[in-house]
Amino acid sequence: MSETRIRIGIVGATGAVGRVALSLLEERGWPASDVVALASARSKGKWLPYADTELEVVETTPETLEGFDVVFISASSAVSREFAPIVVEKGGLVIDDGSAFRMEPEVPLVVPEVNGGDVLWHRGIISIPNCTTTPLVMVLDALRQLGAIERVTVATYQAVSGTGAAAVAELNEQTAAIARGASPQVAVYPYQIAMNVLPHVDSFKDDGYTVEEHKMTNESRKILHDDGLRLSATCVRVPVPVGHSEAVHVDLDRSIEESDIRAALNAFPGVTVVDDPQRTLYPMPHTAEGKDEVLVGRIRRDMSSPRGIAFWLSCDNLRKGAALNALQIMDEVIRRDALSPAATHKA
Amino acid sequence: MSETRIRIGIVGATGAVGRVALSLLEERGWPASDVVALASARSKGKWLPYADTELEVVETTPETLEGFDVVFISASSAVSREFAPIVVEKGGLVIDDGSAFRMEPEVPLVVPEVNGGDVLWHRGIISIPNCTTTPLVMVLDALRQLGAIERVTVATYQAVSGTGAAAVAELNEQTAAIARGASPQVAVYPYQIAMNVLPHVDSFKDDGYTVEEHKMTNESRKILHDDGLRLSATCVRVPVPVGHSEAVHVDLDRSIEESDIRAALNAFPGVTVVDDPQRTLYPMPHTAEGKDEVLVGRIRRDMSSPRGIAFWLSCDNLRKGAALNALQIMDEVIRRDALSPAATHKA
Repeated sequence: MSETRIRIGIVGATGAVGRVALSLLEERGWPASDVVALASARSKGKWLPYADTELEVVETTPETLEGFDVVFISASSAVSREFAPIVVEKGGLVIDDGSAFRMEPEVPLVVPEVNGGDVLWHRGIISIPNCTTTPLVMVLDALRQLGAIERVTVATYQAVSGTGAAAVAELNEQTAAIARGASPQVAVYPYQIAMNVLPHVDSFKDDGYTVEEHKMTNESRKILHDDGLRLSATCVRVPVPVGHSEAVHVDLDRSIEESDIRAALNAFPGVTVVDDPQRTLYPMPHTAEGKDEVLVGRIRRDMSSPRGIAFWLSCDNLRKGAALNALQIMDEVIRRDALSPAATHKA
Repeated sequence: MSETRIRIGIVGATGAVGRVALSLLEERGWPASDVVALASARSKGKWLPYADTELEVVETTPETLEGFDVVFISASSAVSREFAPIVVEKGGLVIDDGSAFRMEPEVPLVVPEVNGGDVLWHRGIISIPNCTTTPLVMVLDALRQLGAIERVTVATYQAVSGTGAAAVAELNEQTAAIARGASPQVAVYPYQIAMNVLPHVDSFKDDGYTVEEHKMTNESRKILHDDGLRLSATCVRVPVPVGHSEAVHVDLDRSIEESDIRAALNAFPGVTVVDDPQRTLYPMPHTAEGKDEVLVGRIRRDMSSPRGIAFWLSCDNLRKGAALNALQIMDEVIRRDALSPAATHKA
């Protein structure tokens, strides 16, 4: 990378994920001159702090999308659908955080630790999975080294930042209202989220599952290259700002020693076992926040199934669940020399 | 009951469950002269509002436990172990909210809608189940009318009032601290509970499960009279004041039409199906609070299992999860004329 300058655009730079993407680039010492913050007209002209300087927010238009090697998009599906083809046409690689392209057959859906090789067949767009899928497939990939996965059930505890910055503001405002004895105002979610939980993430389908729950099944199948994976999810929003958690049951096709499970999880890149209950150590959103790793704990034999494993994970939904995974996809593309050559500027 | 006066003592009357028990008796128009509020020496002499009067809190001692037909105990296990035998010796019936006696073979563990008949064999003590077990066994009892239960996995979302009044105060204080930008103080739980979730309810056992998770398995088996029931739980505390929720997967021994599942649940006493996702209707702790019923929704075929059902429930953990179930046990005992006759005063 020392000889290659990569010019990066971040569409949705003022959003919850966009801001984390900027801070991750900053942590890596990415030069401010090679990063452009893009957003809707509403945010045009705002300044975002970056390293020892500031980035002026540019409105996302076909003209301002000129000259990028990589454009991260973290906005609505409509924004992705409108601007991704334009970036591709101009020779840039889109790494898209939304659900717009994830299930399209010609778009790789990538968690680098699991299916990094899939970046090789991109045609200009690579999608990153839903923030609940990413940590789960990492753990499932580790476990299937021990035996074939027969069934997965999962219940999620999802932070409001997965919805976006407005939802974080709403949780904080409702919390403040409750603290002063006032009535919380409801706008982003259909019901009060402070002091409550909602078994409702994304819209409902006719089969009673939500779109989010289908995403977990379908995206896991695509990333793991296992079209027959049996996975059922219940996705639940909890009054937590950052950090998704999941209670998971996995049935393998054979019985595995608990020590082998721990070893496989610990050996998996990006996964850290935090599991010492006698010392009150287990994953929590509060400790996952700001960390790159997926934290896994509460590992135990599933007492309802002879070949089952039960565990619990927490993960920073804005980092590995979104912005970090996007940057790691870029790293993977560069490492495998799979950026469109026309879009790579030699310094 | 019109001819029978039942004198009731409530040990732990100043606690979260005790206060709800008092308000339920008040709702029923139970005369203040037949209700005595008991608590530790610390609360002695406090006054608790009751109907149009107040009850003076009496210290729980062998002497003050004289002359009761029914004594509800909702305090620590140590309190139950100390005072329950004294009440029994004096001819009273103990209905105990704690875990002290639940698994003892000579103590019935009762959810009246499920195993009301078990009150008949009490020897002075009847236990009520853990607040996560009660709503679950009601739904499981409804479902097993359709087919034998082969497996249950459950992830809970438990309110802090399950821990007690001090935990509710801690959630409120931490919430207020966060709202004013201060550092939340941690005392009741090992970590901050506001804006966080803890996969930790009760203490840990060597097998990696918590005592709470074992309770759900063992108590369900006892109540359902099904010693082989395969049930695995992950119990999680969430920053909610009142209302436990559970994401549940149940495998039956046959495939059942969804309409039959709904019908069986709707027909079960104390269960209300709240399940119209297209109209944004599903159970939540916020709507379960203050209600007597177990609310069940998100009912769907489990896409990971051909004979599986997935659903979600919410229940007021202080009412049906505790105080209401205790009162309903008393009703059941009276209806079946199973109060120790010596302790029944004819008016």
